[in-house]
Amino acid sequence: MAETKNRQIILASRPVGEPKDENFKLVESTLPQPAKDEVLLRTLYLSLDPYMRGRMSATKSYAEPVAINGVMEGGTVSEVMQSQYSNLAKGDIVLGYTGWQSQAIAPGATLIKIDPNLAPVSTALGVLGMPGMTAYTGLLNIGQPQAGETVVVAAASGAVGAIVGQIAKIKGCRVIGIAGGKRKCDYVIKELGFDDCIDHKDANLPKLLGKSCPKGIDVYFENVGGAVFEAVFPLLNPFARIPVCGLISAYNETTLEAGAIPLPILMRAILTKRLTFRGFIVSDFGSQRQEFLQAVSGWIKEGRIKYLEDVVEGLENAPKAFQGLLKGENFGKLIVRVGDEQ
Amino acid sequence: MAETKNRQIILASRPVGEPKDENFKLVESTLPQPAKDEVLLRTLYLSLDPYMRGRMSATKSYAEPVAINGVMEGGTVSEVMQSQYSNLAKGDIVLGYTGWQSQAIAPGATLIKIDPNLAPVSTALGVLGMPGMTAYTGLLNIGQPQAGETVVVAAASGAVGAIVGQIAKIKGCRVIGIAGGKRKCDYVIKELGFDDCIDHKDANLPKLLGKSCPKGIDVYFENVGGAVFEAVFPLLNPFARIPVCGLISAYNETTLEAGAIPLPILMRAILTKRLTFRGFIVSDFGSQRQEFLQAVSGWIKEGRIKYLEDVVEGLENAPKAFQGLLKGENFGKLIVRVGDEQ
Repeated sequence: MAETKNRQIILASRPVGEPKDENFKLVESTLPQPAKDEVLLRTLYLSLDPYMRGRMSATKSYAEPVAINGVMEGGTVSEVMQSQYSNLAKGDIVLGYTGWQSQAIAPGATLIKIDPNLAPVSTALGVLGMPGMTAYTGLLNIGQPQAGETVVVAAASGAVGAIVGQIAKIKGCRVIGIAGGKRKCDYVIKELGFDDCIDHKDANLPKLLGKSCPKGIDVYFENVGGAVFEAVFPLLNPFARIPVCGLISAYNETTLEAGAIPLPILMRAILTKRLTFRGFIVSDFGSQRQEFLQAVSGWIKEGRIKYLEDVVEGLENAPKAFQGLLKGENFGKLIVRVGDEQ
Repeated sequence: MAETKNRQIILASRPVGEPKDENFKLVESTLPQPAKDEVLLRTLYLSLDPYMRGRMSATKSYAEPVAINGVMEGGTVSEVMQSQYSNLAKGDIVLGYTGWQSQAIAPGATLIKIDPNLAPVSTALGVLGMPGMTAYTGLLNIGQPQAGETVVVAAASGAVGAIVGQIAKIKGCRVIGIAGGKRKCDYVIKELGFDDCIDHKDANLPKLLGKSCPKGIDVYFENVGGAVFEAVFPLLNPFARIPVCGLISAYNETTLEAGAIPLPILMRAILTKRLTFRGFIVSDFGSQRQEFLQAVSGWIKEGRIKYLEDVVEGLENAPKAFQGLLKGENFGKLIVRVGDEQ
């Protein structure tokens, strides 16, 4: 068989502050035949997620940065085109981590086969994938919401926040979302069933949040940082739990200012209120994958969890869509359709 | 029976910054007869502890402040002089929370009878009391030290820190103390068996700490705050646990400065290193009291845990001793001998 043409988006240069078009480059290449235990994949969907901003910087975070001229990393749903791996066959749909490209060769052992009868295969990147599992594991392991408690979720219409809030509702909590703009807030209340949702662009955020949380805040699912955290902080109840899952407000910052809360004030609150702050990423709870899939797919079937996908057409539009994601312009889980499902 | 003369130290005024003599006042009063279910107590030992500084301020912490002209609060070991409570008899020795006074009337149900054959009764205020249990429960529940990990303990010669470090050694950890001055550091290494101890007055603290922790820090038992935390922070390993038990460096501060670590830097580290910060006080783990007593008294008998008491003579000297405690002048668990054991 002949070589396969491949389109890739590579990291052309490291962004300073917000990523710009020039930091990305679309290149064409060819792929060899898959070797033993490898498969050739055609990308159907590429997931775009805030953590990717961290990979574009040279600083080591919980993972190594993408190299200059390296293919941008990301989760994908792909179709197997050729297989040299015994457990996968041509036509199978798989979840992988093959990045921003239209084709890929990957070791079969790194791929997870998706059952297309269970749900649309794109959900393997969202509600039934990394964002959904981030929400599920972080909320239940660290947040430990109890019925009657108040749970506040930032980025409430986003891929993670929407699931956090809906699971907290299932657990019997009062759930307050924070989101950007009236359209998102309306969606969070009317479609997702949160008790309230506050626009973080409103200058009265601290006051409005206080009104919506008359009994204080027991769990704050932190995936934003900045001004939202500052509004949440004084409302935290004794024994409040703060799973720290992301800090999207700071991802593009080149200088980190002290912010409105000095560290000694935070430490004193941790002590006197017996707060728990704990950072995590989804792989810390990798062993809970089956439990998560079973619980959340069940809740989807029962209509207790809804999800929304924001699908962008074409790999070439990924850089712009990613820049918009960091500004909160997406509405629902952001996914790029790279190839058509057959 | 006649009324009983009582000597009390009351809170005369609230301190601004460091407590001064004028914030305390020694007064005499008389006590009535104990009513039904009450006992009359003669104080033998009064515990002095850093948390008392918080009770002197009007700000509500995890407990209500002491009222102006109210008796200063504190844990005591006392002898029962008269009993109207069926489970206690004259001559019994009890642990109570009767405060800075030579006598007290207390409901019998609030007292815990001490077995004087088990250990010197003063240990009920130290290694077998609140400080020891703070060390035991905070380290094991939150710190969760694993063999081979590195544990750093501030105020390492203090009532809590000394026990934290010795338990961490029993658990197979590398243990580094931080203490004030050569004498305390020598004691921590030679008597308590820590692997190293660094003088926090040394300007090279960050560098010295780095040298003593070549594999980074997995558990930092925080009871100091300030410059010690700043030295520890960059050395924290992924998944490090930070039980926050006290912030003695800040107790006297009237203005809290931002410090050297801006909040966004801390939050980013919590996220990327998956750190856990959790505040606690000993009563949060009240149900573990028997387990603690059994474990620690066993370790004392085996010679695996040593303790040191710094005994001040006379109730009238409590204010000065307490002021010294906040400056780190004590050496070992600070206790006031209020009355003689028979």
